Amino acid sequence: MKSFLYPKLNPPSFTWVRPDEGAEVAKVHDWIQPLSASSDPEKSKDADFVVVGVPLSRSSISASGASEFPEAFRRAWKGFTTYNLDEDIDLSEMTAVDVGDVPMHVTDIMRCHDNIIAASTALHQHFETSKVCAIGGDHSITAMMVKGLHQARPDEKIGILQFDTHFDLRDMTDNGPSNGTPMRNLIESGIVEGSHMYNIGLHGFFNTKDLKKYADEQGVNYFTLRETRKTGIKETVGACLEELAAKVDTIYLTVDMDVLDIAYAPGVPASTPGGMTTAELLEGVLVAAKHPKVKAMDIVCLDPLKDTFAQPTVKLGTHVFLTFLAGVMLR
Amino acid sequence: MKSFLYPKLNPPSFTWVRPDEGAEVAKVHDWIQPLSASSDPEKSKDADFVVVGVPLSRSSISASGASEFPEAFRRAWKGFTTYNLDEDIDLSEMTAVDVGDVPMHVTDIMRCHDNIIAASTALHQHFETSKVCAIGGDHSITAMMVKGLHQARPDEKIGILQFDTHFDLRDMTDNGPSNGTPMRNLIESGIVEGSHMYNIGLHGFFNTKDLKKYADEQGVNYFTLRETRKTGIKETVGACLEELAAKVDTIYLTVDMDVLDIAYAPGVPASTPGGMTTAELLEGVLVAAKHPKVKAMDIVCLDPLKDTFAQPTVKLGTHVFLTFLAGVMLR
Amino acid sequence: MKSFLYPKLNPPSFTWVRPDEGAEVAKVHDWIQPLSASSDPEKSKDADFVVVGVPLSRSSISASGASEFPEAFRRAWKGFTTYNLDEDIDLSEMTAVDVGDVPMHVTDIMRCHDNIIAASTALHQHFETSKVCAIGGDHSITAMMVKGLHQARPDEKIGILQFDTHFDLRDMTDNGPSNGTPMRNLIESGIVEGSHMYNIGLHGFFNTKDLKKYADEQGVNYFTLRETRKTGIKETVGACLEELAAKVDTIYLTVDMDVLDIAYAPGVPASTPGGMTTAELLEGVLVAAKHPKVKAMDIVCLDPLKDTFAQPTVKLGTHVFLTFLAGVMLR
Amino acid sequence: MKSFLYPKLNPPSFTWVRPDEGAEVAKVHDWIQPLSASSDPEKSKDADFVVVGVPLSRSSISASGASEFPEAFRRAWKGFTTYNLDEDIDLSEMTAVDVGDVPMHVTDIMRCHDNIIAASTALHQHFETSKVCAIGGDHSITAMMVKGLHQARPDEKIGILQFDTHFDLRDMTDNGPSNGTPMRNLIESGIVEGSHMYNIGLHGFFNTKDLKKYADEQGVNYFTLRETRKTGIKETVGACLEELAAKVDTIYLTVDMDVLDIAYAPGVPASTPGGMTTAELLEGVLVAAKHPKVKAMDIVCLDPLKDTFAQPTVKLGTHVFLTFLAGVMLR
Amino acid sequence: MKSFLYPKLNPPSFTWVRPDEGAEVAKVHDWIQPLSASSDPEKSKDADFVVVGVPLSRSSISASGASEFPEAFRRAWKGFTTYNLDEDIDLSEMTAVDVGDVPMHVTDIMRCHDNIIAASTALHQHFETSKVCAIGGDHSITAMMVKGLHQARPDEKIGILQFDTHFDLRDMTDNGPSNGTPMRNLIESGIVEGSHMYNIGLHGFFNTKDLKKYADEQGVNYFTLRETRKTGIKETVGACLEELAAKVDTIYLTVDMDVLDIAYAPGVPASTPGGMTTAELLEGVLVAAKHPKVKAMDIVCLDPLKDTFAQPTVKLGTHVFLTFLAGVMLR
Amino acid sequence: MKSFLYPKLNPPSFTWVRPDEGAEVAKVHDWIQPLSASSDPEKSKDADFVVVGVPLSRSSISASGASEFPEAFRRAWKGFTTYNLDEDIDLSEMTAVDVGDVPMHVTDIMRCHDNIIAASTALHQHFETSKVCAIGGDHSITAMMVKGLHQARPDEKIGILQFDTHFDLRDMTDNGPSNGTPMRNLIESGIVEGSHMYNIGLHGFFNTKDLKKYADEQGVNYFTLRETRKTGIKETVGACLEELAAKVDTIYLTVDMDVLDIAYAPGVPASTPGGMTTAELLEGVLVAAKHPKVKAMDIVCLDPLKDTFAQPTVKLGTHVFLTFLAGVMLR
Repeated sequence: MKSFLYPKLNPPSFTWVRPDEGAEVAKVHDWIQPLSASSDPEKSKDADFVVVGVPLSRSSISASGASEFPEAFRRAWKGFTTYNLDEDIDLSEMTAVDVGDVPMHVTDIMRCHDNIIAASTALHQHFETSKVCAIGGDHSITAMMVKGLHQARPDEKIGILQFDTHFDLRDMTDNGPSNGTPMRNLIESGIVEGSHMYNIGLHGFFNTKDLKKYADEQGVNYFTLRETRKTGIKETVGACLEELAAKVDTIYLTVDMDVLDIAYAPGVPASTPGGMTTAELLEGVLVAAKHPKVKAMDIVCLDPLKDTFAQPTVKLGTHVFLTFLAGVMLR
Repeated sequence: MKSFLYPKLNPPSFTWVRPDEGAEVAKVHDWIQPLSASSDPEKSKDADFVVVGVPLSRSSISASGASEFPEAFRRAWKGFTTYNLDEDIDLSEMTAVDVGDVPMHVTDIMRCHDNIIAASTALHQHFETSKVCAIGGDHSITAMMVKGLHQARPDEKIGILQFDTHFDLRDMTDNGPSNGTPMRNLIESGIVEGSHMYNIGLHGFFNTKDLKKYADEQGVNYFTLRETRKTGIKETVGACLEELAAKVDTIYLTVDMDVLDIAYAPGVPASTPGGMTTAELLEGVLVAAKHPKVKAMDIVCLDPLKDTFAQPTVKLGTHVFLTFLAGVMLR
Repeated sequence: MKSFLYPKLNPPSFTWVRPDEGAEVAKVHDWIQPLSASSDPEKSKDADFVVVGVPLSRSSISASGASEFPEAFRRAWKGFTTYNLDEDIDLSEMTAVDVGDVPMHVTDIMRCHDNIIAASTALHQHFETSKVCAIGGDHSITAMMVKGLHQARPDEKIGILQFDTHFDLRDMTDNGPSNGTPMRNLIESGIVEGSHMYNIGLHGFFNTKDLKKYADEQGVNYFTLRETRKTGIKETVGACLEELAAKVDTIYLTVDMDVLDIAYAPGVPASTPGGMTTAELLEGVLVAAKHPKVKAMDIVCLDPLKDTFAQPTVKLGTHVFLTFLAGVMLR
Repeated sequence: MKSFLYPKLNPPSFTWVRPDEGAEVAKVHDWIQPLSASSDPEKSKDADFVVVGVPLSRSSISASGASEFPEAFRRAWKGFTTYNLDEDIDLSEMTAVDVGDVPMHVTDIMRCHDNIIAASTALHQHFETSKVCAIGGDHSITAMMVKGLHQARPDEKIGILQFDTHFDLRDMTDNGPSNGTPMRNLIESGIVEGSHMYNIGLHGFFNTKDLKKYADEQGVNYFTLRETRKTGIKETVGACLEELAAKVDTIYLTVDMDVLDIAYAPGVPASTPGGMTTAELLEGVLVAAKHPKVKAMDIVCLDPLKDTFAQPTVKLGTHVFLTFLAGVMLR
Repeated sequence: MKSFLYPKLNPPSFTWVRPDEGAEVAKVHDWIQPLSASSDPEKSKDADFVVVGVPLSRSSISASGASEFPEAFRRAWKGFTTYNLDEDIDLSEMTAVDVGDVPMHVTDIMRCHDNIIAASTALHQHFETSKVCAIGGDHSITAMMVKGLHQARPDEKIGILQFDTHFDLRDMTDNGPSNGTPMRNLIESGIVEGSHMYNIGLHGFFNTKDLKKYADEQGVNYFTLRETRKTGIKETVGACLEELAAKVDTIYLTVDMDVLDIAYAPGVPASTPGGMTTAELLEGVLVAAKHPKVKAMDIVCLDPLKDTFAQPTVKLGTHVFLTFLAGVMLR
Repeated sequence: MKSFLYPKLNPPSFTWVRPDEGAEVAKVHDWIQPLSASSDPEKSKDADFVVVGVPLSRSSISASGASEFPEAFRRAWKGFTTYNLDEDIDLSEMTAVDVGDVPMHVTDIMRCHDNIIAASTALHQHFETSKVCAIGGDHSITAMMVKGLHQARPDEKIGILQFDTHFDLRDMTDNGPSNGTPMRNLIESGIVEGSHMYNIGLHGFFNTKDLKKYADEQGVNYFTLRETRKTGIKETVGACLEELAAKVDTIYLTVDMDVLDIAYAPGVPASTPGGMTTAELLEGVLVAAKHPKVKAMDIVCLDPLKDTFAQPTVKLGTHVFLTFLAGVMLR
């Protein structure tokens, strides 16, 4: 069993030098444990959280450097403490392991996708109770992570809570399983029903009528940002979760960073004006994370190469991740 | 009549390659029709919208590249669909023509201004029922567009709804009709009365006491951003429109992009902290556009050369335009 | 007494060319008077405001160019008028002097700190009724400015109102009086009691549990941004001031620019997502400035070298300063 | 025959508005003719130059936006005249057609490569005497363009002149035909012999010993930048061409923009210090273009998304193209 | 005579605080003396150098912020000492005065041009033996500065030495005296003969055949960068000066910063690849400055708003100015 | 002996994940071995190279982020192979260890300097034959590294070869041992004689007459960039080394990155136009490194926070380091 992770996963390209045994853990990079080939995986089986990098963005419709986010994300840990003052909780009381990155092929995207499915399956099998956090990568990876989850636990009915500016319901016959297609991919493969999908934050002139029609036909649930603001982000997410929980066993949370307004998140491949504020997204993620049926999540379409100097998007993506962890801890 | 547009207007410097006859129109650049010299203008006479570029910013007090916005604006169409999910409407059910740019002279600014007046007159005469959307350029163009509207329809009483950080009521005796003067220009030329002007969004330390005094003397109506937020943006704009509509025949909407907070719109010549959010401006424009007396509009003082890499300001300016169209469609 | 300023203070590196005697004062740089060695300090003794630059950031934990803010701040004056439209008041009816910068030593930080204490003492002694505005520099200067205030007026009990993402209560035994320590420094030196400190705006994963524990032990009052938003920024600040005023004679206001969200203030050494908006901070500062016991303030940790091209942070820092002045004028 | 281009090639996404029939052609964008579906391809058969965009960079090892270069390249035409003062020649005396872009698939890279081969074959068959200029895209496209040339003219022996920092001789068994492999790809497919390859400009710590060994085994000719500078760039290129011309029928020129020093070309995926200057590359390209056996060329690995604001790399890539044309005209 | 400067010239917007009488002058900003309205102009009559800002760029064909250079230039003084190590000379042994800026009108470009002519005339009359250094602004100012020189000294025959990528010989009938026309302006006004113009550094695809023809017809002398490099920059400039000196009384040196390669000078309105290096331009300017007949100079088309963060172009423009001064001192 | 490094040195903040035992070493980050607390230092005693980070820049006169270079430098390793094609040598045949960073104090600069001296002494004692490469940090560290070398080997006479734009001979009485003083510091402390210092690359207006006078009095040898170019960089460095070698036992090489032209190295605290090209500096460093008496070196004043997006300066600094290693290998 020892080698279950290798060679299927690559270790992170670097590791932070950790404080000595017994020293105070103050920052996130002191806390999250890289799971190297030489570790005993059995010991980490009960980790509260599993982080896996999914550095694939060659499947993105527009040019994307989202493949660089897993590394930028790990670098950003250093800027965050494990302690959350708002909730007075310390993540370091829980355990998190970093299992490294799904290996990718340079010119065979199908093989990349297969690797993600296989990795997701293995992780969900091995880490039975852990929350698996996939750090993308473009949005095509969501379909693969969910497929892996399904293979690992074929009896569980899966629902999806999505924060997104787009439907991501494009037809796959034209261009294959790109980042515009993950939700359709899951519907067509029969793994997730349209009516078990809840998409929050859509807005503006960034979807087509056809996609809306398809969404309606499939019973996909969606809430424009304007509607969400009227109801309240907390209330909207809460209501979605309640509905979803009544219908499925497991909820997968996917955060497409392009749901944010361009002023808050310039580092996404297709940044748009009129999106969510940071405060709104963080509140939504916190509410979602508190729900006991949310068992896996991903953060996608964050392109560090398009970020500005101060790295607002990389930092915000990392904050989304930590907020998810805090929410789980508060359950 | 055929040549009414030429040589008075220059064609856009480039045209998007359009989808084949009958193919689906998905993006804005597939939809808006360039009106070339060889087109039959009679056919487009009933267009719902007319877009005209007004690439003049050498009349700006501070160094401005707002002359580059018409081209940047046309480039940005590619990033927007014609379908608006919030309202479930598709702009492609309406018609829009792009008549190109008002020709400018490099060293004779008066001639530029005269060209704008002439173009505005011609457009308002030819496109009798269309909404004319002028893409600036600096704010001096507003006085010229309104003068042209007045020449085309001398019997209509014109009012102005303005989103701006500034009064734009500077004295013209010092430096001529610069971008600091359009409202005073219109008052002094007798075309628009001060009391028919409504300015929303002023704030901070960006106006002088003298200008305030002049505004009060002329009966100009203005609402600071703080007041607007207390009342609500929707309510404030609604009340202004109601008052205006009781007094005038035609309302001209002018959006100075510097009304926005610098975090949302870095690409303006004099960006300031403390301004509107994107959500506020878009809501205000939508409300305004729904009013049946609003017949023309402009977007000014957007300098693409000062924008950051992800082009938040160019995208937002384009979104303001599309939101205006959506509002008109919802009438 | 005439030379009290020199050689203890350096003149600003440059001076704006002022309008002729009698000419209209329109912009901030026309108004604030530099106090040169040849000026008669007695004449300016009753100035409403005293501006002093404190260009020290080599005491910052992370690499910081906050030492460049005093010069950038003076440059930015040119972009602001003295007239505030929201309140219909004109700062030029009050008087403000710029006494220049506290001299710094390149390699002896203790001497820098001593110079700040000495300058603060001298300023508070000389300008008895003026509000002293210190333009940092990193947050270590706050402890020194307050120590100087204490030396000048040893009988006054001092309280602190702080806008900050952090506690700034780190232990000084490790790394001396760095920018992470000013509040602890003041507590340990017995100048300000923990219970006389009110910190507003803390959030996220940017403090440690130990610091929270220390804050609690010392009775430091703090309000996370989330709590503040629930109560209202105005209400929170108002309540803090009321409590403080009941306990102390003098309130010192310190604004750490990192309290702002990274989207609004990229130009700080440790910018974070999830912080205050510009509107919130300006409202908080205005409320604070109106309180009669607030007699001094500073703006710290603004690094112009990390700002984006349009200088949003430098402009916002300057706006915070002007808002403070407006608040005082409204008393 | 009329539709030979479609649907195999996509038209450029936009077209410049051309001067009227008979008007002076001054700028490059006035001159190069887009070949649309409705054009008569027979008429353009004898064009001196054929431009084809090859917007593929998902086959790049590191994250690359080189797929954006064809569009950026066409935009940049506007900044260049057709007249070259150094040589007193005017390109407008020759003819150039823009046949659009090779269509790409989002998730099937093999299909992209096949499309490039097919397009190259078709172009070389149709435009028998034209020089075909491929605008990449990453370096993987070179192998495909050459394969197409080979299919169109199987009897011609092909040699390659390469400007590059790298060998591009990586093993394809690991990651398929990525941008690190084109030269090996051509050797292994038997289309170009190693000894018919001449690579100029390699330098520094950017290749491995293994690749050098393979190059030596295959008889690949290469000249480090240091050697080239000693001999002279003109002399080195001249000598290579002479040798090559004695061995092959057709010479294909490939310019990898990463051969340039990072100070001159920041907009490449793997920019390096110590590379060529602009003057050196332009001189080398001019010499190469004058040789009668050079019949096709490409420009690859130029990533406009990594360029600085003034677009030095995009402009330089365009200049390389025009210099090639000038050289051909001087034959 | 005392008020000759006012109101015709505006003082610089700010002045550096100067070292005390007798203190060491180390930096350029300690040395150059601003000439204020209250100064006695008679005292500065014999200054070796006169600096005048000419902040006009609304006459530029493309959007230009060159109007911001005079202020950026004065700011940059602080980064340079007066001592030149290469030549072991100290500029502070000479005298330089800063007379401020030519006043500009916002919307009347002709009046701006008239003001420049008037200012140039006045300066050349008053400062009979000084070298007048005009800091542009765009290239249209050169024609005006030379016209002023001609009016001041109508009997002197004037020649021009120009470093430029362009001829600047465009026809004025289309767009008036823009930045593309100064040389033609001077030829057509009969002030400078074509054969008394020497232009060094032209290159690439940035001029038209028509302009070349006009240059030839008028006998304008020009040397492409390639020719210049073959001969040597020093030798080329030397030979030009020798020829010019035999024909004219006074030589005016004009440096268009766009003569530089974009890698060295990104901050120009139309930056191009393939231009001069910094070393070449500085060498050329030094040789020119040493010639006794060179009596005035300008630096134009430097747009600080397009510069990168480290301000390479602003610094280089300032270095060009100082190198000119050093050359004069070495005469 | 095992703990000689700790606690005096901090480990690097992160470590690259290394290839498995026996796997090919291709990139620099696969090769350089971090020497952790648990390593046996005896084993690495004979390392060819020792890398030590010296992250101090609070002693810099101007605001500097050079303290960030050691981390940026280690990150940059990933972009370089160990194989140098120009020389056909592979660094991986030698050994290099990374001993981590000298620990710094936030507010006590003297203690930082003492730590550097102590670390340098320890390293030179322990690694008797290794070349010690110090990665700064600002230039003040050079004096400390050399003092440590002197303490370790008091009998060796030390000479310095310096690449710099500045003398770095400022008086320490004003501001202590800042980055403007290291050479004077060494002269005054009697450790290195002025006549044993050779400074290459000075240029322009960046030094004062007083410093030149001091240099001459102390017999410091210096060569302006202009002189160096006339003689040839290789020849100049060669001649300096020959002279130095006749006078001293050990040569210390110090590379101040500000010797480079701003076009090549924007990421330095005081970047200047007119400096060295990349090719010149690399050639100079290679020649120096080949000399058998060169036993230690440093790279200073590289500020990654001022670099542009593509990181030209960080990459070039790393290339300088690798070139030094190659030169040593070629001895």
